[in-house]
Amino acid sequence: MSAADRFLELWGIQADLGYGSAVLQWDQETYMPPAGGEARGKILATFAEIQHEKLVSAELGDAIEAAAEEAEPNSELEAQVQEARRLREREVKIPGALAKALAEAESRGLRAWQKARKESDFSMFAEELEHTIRLNKEKAAALAPNGNAYDAMLDLYEPGITERVLTPMFEELGSVLSPMIAAVRESGVVVDESPAQGRFDVAKQKELCMFVAKQMGYDFSAGRLDATAHPFCTTFGHQDVRITWRWQEDDIRPALYGVMHEAGHGLYEQGIVESLRRTPLGEATGLGMHESQSRLWENMVGRSEDFWTWMMPHFVEAFPEKTGTRPGQMKAALNTCRPSLIRVEADEATYNLHIAARFFIEQQIFAGSVAVADLPELWDQTYEDLLGIRPQSVAEGVLQDIHWAMGAFGYFPTYTLGNLICAQLFDAAYAAIPELDEAIAKGEFAPLREWLGTNIHQHGRRFSTHQLVEKATGTPLTSGPLLHHLTSTAEKVYGVSLGAQRG
Amino acid sequence: MSAADRFLELWGIQADLGYGSAVLQWDQETYMPPAGGEARGKILATFAEIQHEKLVSAELGDAIEAAAEEAEPNSELEAQVQEARRLREREVKIPGALAKALAEAESRGLRAWQKARKESDFSMFAEELEHTIRLNKEKAAALAPNGNAYDAMLDLYEPGITERVLTPMFEELGSVLSPMIAAVRESGVVVDESPAQGRFDVAKQKELCMFVAKQMGYDFSAGRLDATAHPFCTTFGHQDVRITWRWQEDDIRPALYGVMHEAGHGLYEQGIVESLRRTPLGEATGLGMHESQSRLWENMVGRSEDFWTWMMPHFVEAFPEKTGTRPGQMKAALNTCRPSLIRVEADEATYNLHIAARFFIEQQIFAGSVAVADLPELWDQTYEDLLGIRPQSVAEGVLQDIHWAMGAFGYFPTYTLGNLICAQLFDAAYAAIPELDEAIAKGEFAPLREWLGTNIHQHGRRFSTHQLVEKATGTPLTSGPLLHHLTSTAEKVYGVSLGAQRG
Repeated sequence: MSAADRFLELWGIQADLGYGSAVLQWDQETYMPPAGGEARGKILATFAEIQHEKLVSAELGDAIEAAAEEAEPNSELEAQVQEARRLREREVKIPGALAKALAEAESRGLRAWQKARKESDFSMFAEELEHTIRLNKEKAAALAPNGNAYDAMLDLYEPGITERVLTPMFEELGSVLSPMIAAVRESGVVVDESPAQGRFDVAKQKELCMFVAKQMGYDFSAGRLDATAHPFCTTFGHQDVRITWRWQEDDIRPALYGVMHEAGHGLYEQGIVESLRRTPLGEATGLGMHESQSRLWENMVGRSEDFWTWMMPHFVEAFPEKTGTRPGQMKAALNTCRPSLIRVEADEATYNLHIAARFFIEQQIFAGSVAVADLPELWDQTYEDLLGIRPQSVAEGVLQDIHWAMGAFGYFPTYTLGNLICAQLFDAAYAAIPELDEAIAKGEFAPLREWLGTNIHQHGRRFSTHQLVEKATGTPLTSGPLLHHLTSTAEKVYGVSLGAQRG
Repeated sequence: MSAADRFLELWGIQADLGYGSAVLQWDQETYMPPAGGEARGKILATFAEIQHEKLVSAELGDAIEAAAEEAEPNSELEAQVQEARRLREREVKIPGALAKALAEAESRGLRAWQKARKESDFSMFAEELEHTIRLNKEKAAALAPNGNAYDAMLDLYEPGITERVLTPMFEELGSVLSPMIAAVRESGVVVDESPAQGRFDVAKQKELCMFVAKQMGYDFSAGRLDATAHPFCTTFGHQDVRITWRWQEDDIRPALYGVMHEAGHGLYEQGIVESLRRTPLGEATGLGMHESQSRLWENMVGRSEDFWTWMMPHFVEAFPEKTGTRPGQMKAALNTCRPSLIRVEADEATYNLHIAARFFIEQQIFAGSVAVADLPELWDQTYEDLLGIRPQSVAEGVLQDIHWAMGAFGYFPTYTLGNLICAQLFDAAYAAIPELDEAIAKGEFAPLREWLGTNIHQHGRRFSTHQLVEKATGTPLTSGPLLHHLTSTAEKVYGVSLGAQRG
C-alpha cells in the first residue's frame, strides 16, 4: 500500500465516524423516542471521543507526513495532506484539559442560557457567559498563539476568512441598508402578504416542496425529506444527503423557503465529486460557502418573479383558492423589508443587519473592549443604530440566540458571508448562462445547477472559499452584488428610490 | 476511579459502538435512500473494526483482570467480569486471518447462495458452502480446542446450550409431532381460515397492532414501530427499543402476529434493569431466551381463545365486516396444522419439525458424517421422515434459508429453544398468577408481563438460560410443556385424539 493510500485509509475512519454520528443526530431529531435521549448522548460522546483519539494519534500523524513526502507540488494529494494537517493540528493544539472545560462550559452554559432567556434575566447567564468567553479566548490563543483571537474563531467555520476582510463589508452593509430601511419606512408603503398566506394542507405542502426540490435537481434516490423542529441538511456520504422541513398551516413561506434552502445545501453535498469521498477534501469548503448555496436557491431564485412565473400554476393547482394571484404580487409578499428584533424571523432585506450587529459585538468581545455586564446595553444600542429599533427585554435582545451559550463565536458572520457569496455567484451565473431568467421562468434549473456544480460543488475543499469565489466570478468577494440585489428589490417592491446600481 | 469503574467505563465503549451500529442498521432497513447503501456498508465495517480493536485491546484485558481482583465471589461484579472475559476471549481466540477469511466467505457465500436459489441449482453453491463449513470448523476448533465442534457453534447464540441437551428434545419433538401431523391429515378436517382473511386497511392494521403492543406493555415513549421488508426488534439502549412490521392487505396474521412477536422481544429489552445498562450483563441472555419472549406473546397469548375474547370487539371495531366472528373460530384459523416445505411460512404446529430437520443435518455436518454434495438428498429425506412431504426442488429444500450461506451454523436451534422455553414459562406463569386466563380474556396483561419482568427480563445476562428457566419454573428445560401445548391445541382444533397431557 502506498503512503498516500495508507493516509487516505486512515482518514476514511475519521469520515466514517463523522457520518455515523450524523446518522445518530439525524435520528435524534426525526424519529428517536423521547426516552432515548440519555443513551443517545452517551453514544455520541463515545463516538466523539474515538474520533478525537484517532485524529490526534501518532499513527495518523505519521501517515499524513509519509503521504506528504509522496505529494507533487500543487497536486490533489498535496491539498489532501494540507487539509488533513490543518484539521489534525487544530485538534492537537487544544490541550485536553481545555477541551474538557469547553465541553462542560457548553453544557452548563446552555442550561443557564435557557433559564435566563425564559426569565428574561441576563444576570442568570452572565457568569457562565464570562466563563465561556474566557475559555474561548484561551482556545483562540492555543490555536493561533501570535494571531488575532477573533480570526482564530472565524477560521473554525470559514477557513481563511478574517476580521480584516469582514469589517469593511459589514460597515458597507450598515451604511447602505440602514438608510434603505429608513427610506422604506418613510415611504409608508405596506406590502400585501396575503398571496403567501391562507390555509395550506400539510400533505399538499409537502408534495409541492418535494416537487420543487426535485426540479432543482435534489436527488431523492440519494436523499429524503423528514419533519423536524428546526430544518437542517445532513450528509452520511455523498449518496445519502438528507434534508428536513417544518411548516405552518397558514403560511406557505416556512415550508417552501425552508425546503428550497435545505435542498440548496443538499445539492452542494450531493455534487461533491465521488473521488473525494471519505477524504479530507470530501466536504464543503466552509459554512459561508455552504450557506451561499442554500440562500442562492431560497432568495435569488425562489423569491424572484421569474421563479413564480413558472411556479404559480403548480401552486394554484395545489391550492386552487390562490387562483388569480400574479407572480409580481407574490414577489412583493416574499420580499418585505421591515426591521424586527428576532434574527430568525427577519426578512432578507434586514437579515444581514442582525448579523452585522453580532459581528461588531463579537469583535469587541474578543478585543476585550466590552465587559460582559455591558453586553445587553451594547446589543440594544447596536440594534438601534443599525435597524432603528430597540429591544424591550433581553429575551428579545442579547439572549435570543443559542450560539454564544454553546461557545460558537465567529459563527454568525458565515450567514452573511453566504448572502454575499450567493449574490456574487448569481450575477456571474447570469453573465455566463444565456437567458438564465427565461430558463428559471420555465422551471429549467439544470443550467444553473450545472454551473454551480462545475464551479463550486464538485471541488469539495480542494479550494478555499476565496479561491472558489474568485475562480467562479473573476473578482474577489465584494459586497456590491448583494447590496444591489437588496436595494433594487426594495425599490421595486416599495417604489422607493435608492440609486441601486450594479456594485 | 476503582478498577470496577474503569472496567465498566471501557465496556461502555463496546456497548455504545454496538448501539450506534444498531441505529445505522435500523436506518438502513427503514429510511435509508437507495443510493446510500455503499457508504453505509463502509461506515458499519469501520465501526465493527473499531469495536474489535477495542475488545481485544490489552487495555480492556487488563481492566477486566484488575476488576476481577476486586470482585467478591458470586457478586454481580464477578458475573460482569466473567461475561466480559467470555466475550473478549471469544474474539481473541479467532486469529485475524481466519476472521478475515470468514467475512470474505460470508459475502461470497451470500452471492453464490442467492444465485443458486434463484436457479434452483445446488451445484452453484456447493463449493462456497464447503469452504464456509471448513472455515467454521476451524472457528469451532479455535474457540474450543478440545471440545465438541457443534457445541462451539451453538454456544455463540445460546451460551451453555449443548448438543447433548438438545438431541433428546429434538428426538422427542419428532416422535410426538410427526405422528400428530399424520393424525391431523388423516382426520380430513380442513380448518376455516377466513376469520383472519379479508380486506384490511393498512392504517387500521397499524393502529390495531400498536394498540395491542401498548396493551402488552410495550412502551412507545421508549420505542417505535416502522415498516421493513423483514420485521425485527433492535435496541439502542434500554430506553430506545424499536420494532418493525410488515403487513398483508388480505390477511391480518402477518401484521398482528409479527407485531406481537416483536413487541415480545421489545418487552425483554425494555425490561432489563437500568443498573445493567452499558455493561456486559446489559443484554438478553441468549437468542433462545429472547425468542421465548416473542413466541410467548405471539403463540401462547395471541393465538389463544382467551386473547380473542378480549380482542374480538376491538378487531370488529376496526373491521366491521368481521362482526359475528367467534373467538373459537378465530383460534382455529390461527392454529392450523399443515406440513409445508418452507420454514418461514410454517404454522406453529409444524415449525419445530423444520428446525429439528436443520438440527439433525447440522449435527451430521459437524460430525463430518455427510458430504456437502449429499446435503440435498439428506435434506429431502429428513423432511419426508419428519413432515411426510418431500421438496420438488432445492430452492424449496436445502437452499431456502440464508443462515448457512452466512456461516450461521448452530443458530436454527434457538428458534425451537424459544418455543420450548416459552411453553415452560407460560405453564409456570399460569401456576403462579391467579386466574391468568381470565385476565388475558379481559386484556389485562400486566400480571403476565410483570411475572416475566421479575423472572426473566430484569436480569439481563446475570444468569444463563438454563439458570433462568430453572429459577422461574422450578425444573430444568424440558419438552413436555411445548408438546402438551401443541398436541392439545391440535386436539381441540382438529378433533383428533392424541392423548395430550401435561408433560
